[in-house]
Amino acid sequence: MSITAPQGFRAAGVAAGLKASGAPDLALVVNDGPDHHGAAVFTSNRVEAAPVTWSRQACLDGRVDAVVLNSGGANACTGAQGFADTHATAEHVAGALGVASHDVAVCSTGLIGELLPMPKVLAGVDAVVEALRTDGGEDAAVAIRTTDTVHKQAVAHRDGWTVGGMAKGAGMLAPALATMLVVVTTDAVVGEGVLDGVLRAATAVTFDRVDSDGCQSTNDTVLLLASGASGVAPGRDELAAAVTEVCADLARQLVADAEGAHHDIAIEVVGAASEADALEVARSVARNNLFKCAVFGNDPNWGRVLAAVGTTRAEFDPYALDVSMNGVQVCRSGGVGEDRALVDLTGREVHVLVDLHAGAEFATIWTNDLTHDYVHENSAYSS
Amino acid sequence: MSITAPQGFRAAGVAAGLKASGAPDLALVVNDGPDHHGAAVFTSNRVEAAPVTWSRQACLDGRVDAVVLNSGGANACTGAQGFADTHATAEHVAGALGVASHDVAVCSTGLIGELLPMPKVLAGVDAVVEALRTDGGEDAAVAIRTTDTVHKQAVAHRDGWTVGGMAKGAGMLAPALATMLVVVTTDAVVGEGVLDGVLRAATAVTFDRVDSDGCQSTNDTVLLLASGASGVAPGRDELAAAVTEVCADLARQLVADAEGAHHDIAIEVVGAASEADALEVARSVARNNLFKCAVFGNDPNWGRVLAAVGTTRAEFDPYALDVSMNGVQVCRSGGVGEDRALVDLTGREVHVLVDLHAGAEFATIWTNDLTHDYVHENSAYSS
Repeated sequence: MSITAPQGFRAAGVAAGLKASGAPDLALVVNDGPDHHGAAVFTSNRVEAAPVTWSRQACLDGRVDAVVLNSGGANACTGAQGFADTHATAEHVAGALGVASHDVAVCSTGLIGELLPMPKVLAGVDAVVEALRTDGGEDAAVAIRTTDTVHKQAVAHRDGWTVGGMAKGAGMLAPALATMLVVVTTDAVVGEGVLDGVLRAATAVTFDRVDSDGCQSTNDTVLLLASGASGVAPGRDELAAAVTEVCADLARQLVADAEGAHHDIAIEVVGAASEADALEVARSVARNNLFKCAVFGNDPNWGRVLAAVGTTRAEFDPYALDVSMNGVQVCRSGGVGEDRALVDLTGREVHVLVDLHAGAEFATIWTNDLTHDYVHENSAYSS
Repeated sequence: MSITAPQGFRAAGVAAGLKASGAPDLALVVNDGPDHHGAAVFTSNRVEAAPVTWSRQACLDGRVDAVVLNSGGANACTGAQGFADTHATAEHVAGALGVASHDVAVCSTGLIGELLPMPKVLAGVDAVVEALRTDGGEDAAVAIRTTDTVHKQAVAHRDGWTVGGMAKGAGMLAPALATMLVVVTTDAVVGEGVLDGVLRAATAVTFDRVDSDGCQSTNDTVLLLASGASGVAPGRDELAAAVTEVCADLARQLVADAEGAHHDIAIEVVGAASEADALEVARSVARNNLFKCAVFGNDPNWGRVLAAVGTTRAEFDPYALDVSMNGVQVCRSGGVGEDRALVDLTGREVHVLVDLHAGAEFATIWTNDLTHDYVHENSAYSS
């Protein structure tokens, strides 16, 4: 159910012909209210796609009536024509729904540097409006897939109100925001100006801590829409917890479906002088290609972990570092610890624990191994 | 000839049994003077190997009589015992040559987190001292190989004096210093305190601009030794030019032999507001796994170049960016330029030109593509 699990939302997904495969590639999410609150966070990439530029403006006033999303083309690096195309798409959606175009957010994903085939997009908008249903969430989730092997949904039920979400993303997963499109909905009654803070807090500890391949996209967008249709007004903390739960669930699904990955790796850094230090160290390990190749080979090559830690500016003494892999402390006080042969890396999940012995702060970054399949997926065809 | 091309040097390489393969793994370079000037630059990785800690001290006073180098083990993350082993190696070399141990530099390369088999190392030192020859440079270059498919030498002949060099390095190639061991020798007569500046200037524009896989090692060392044996005293600029020429030649060989690479990629950034901006942008592109996979697939996916540029803090307007690949301007003013199908990436060398249109500064970073062979070499066995 996902985004249509909360009351007050309709959604749909159709095949508009943007993908050569004929698979679904256009989705629409509509907030029927009574509230139309919306908040969004976007990629921090300075080369941002036209739909990001558009949606950033559209969401500024805190009202979002609908979100139209397409796969099959990122509409990034497409200049003035690309922006005009995004605008035209929003206008077309707005006309069909009887809302204002500046309350329609637009998201696109796919190859950068190609214009969208607009006649197909606009005909697709007509079709997807026709297909809108109060249980259409799954169809929408399917239509936003690119190289995703599965569609991704999550839901958190509370006492009389609900948060639902859908995500797409399998490559270019990095901060800020793993590279992806995400729509989260809730039927909670939410006060003015609350959504933005709730969404930013949730993404900071979920999507922002996924770093599959270090590559940041031009199109990342996470939207949170609130309809108020349940009539229930949870406290801010309750709402934040539910939104974070859904975002965490979706973020975990992104890691599990990362392009070509054989392992999901949690880099947990503890004993840090600051959370920023912990994040810098975890991210440095997560982006070390040699370490990621070693994990693919089920090789507990902890020297590569230390080499990555050593490139950071975090506070630590190299002779105090401890590293455990899947529970075996292979590095103790910066030197040789338990026998590396005791480490079993054959499972899907790998846990690397780095203790900096420099404080009490901590953080975890999720990443993946670097595999033949990753190279294949990202070299054999354009995406 | 390489390091023994200049007069006043002897070198040798032997098999000490550190490598399971039985291949040569211990090298010695001796400066017979009359001068014994030495300068060094080391990895900036804060987790540094015992031989780096040792050699940093040994080179401080500007005198270096000999350099002993081993492959088959990095002696990194080996704690107090590792440092004691490096010290013992230097003492053993010093004793055999009749020099002071603090004038003996030590370099190691291989797997991190394992102690060296010291009886083999010390016996190897005896053998390599015995094998010293005035034409032993090539044997030394062979003995420092790890995953290198070829040994790497360079020489620059001048009027009556010479600069020679050898390098090892095929993985963990990143700044500051591509990951490697390098020894450069000259028989020029060099004034006190000149060598250090000459070496730092040379490495800054050569090894520091190689970024094959973004991974920085714990053992990087570049040494420059001057014997004065030619009796010729070139000007500082002349010397700097010859040393830079040799370093550039070796750096280019490192790129060409990078683990599993199918393409050598020059990322040239022009129109930058500062050289630092140019370097940041070039490095960001060079480290983008998606771009590197695309090059492996001969796919001129310029969107990935722009996405990488967009993650930097460099001064630029996204709507002013131009990108050419092998001479075809595929991106113009941040949007679609010439047809990407015109780009031919089938050759070994790839040239990516990014014009930021923000100033007059420029820089080039050399990198490689990300291939199945890279993943294989770095996952199938420990290194």
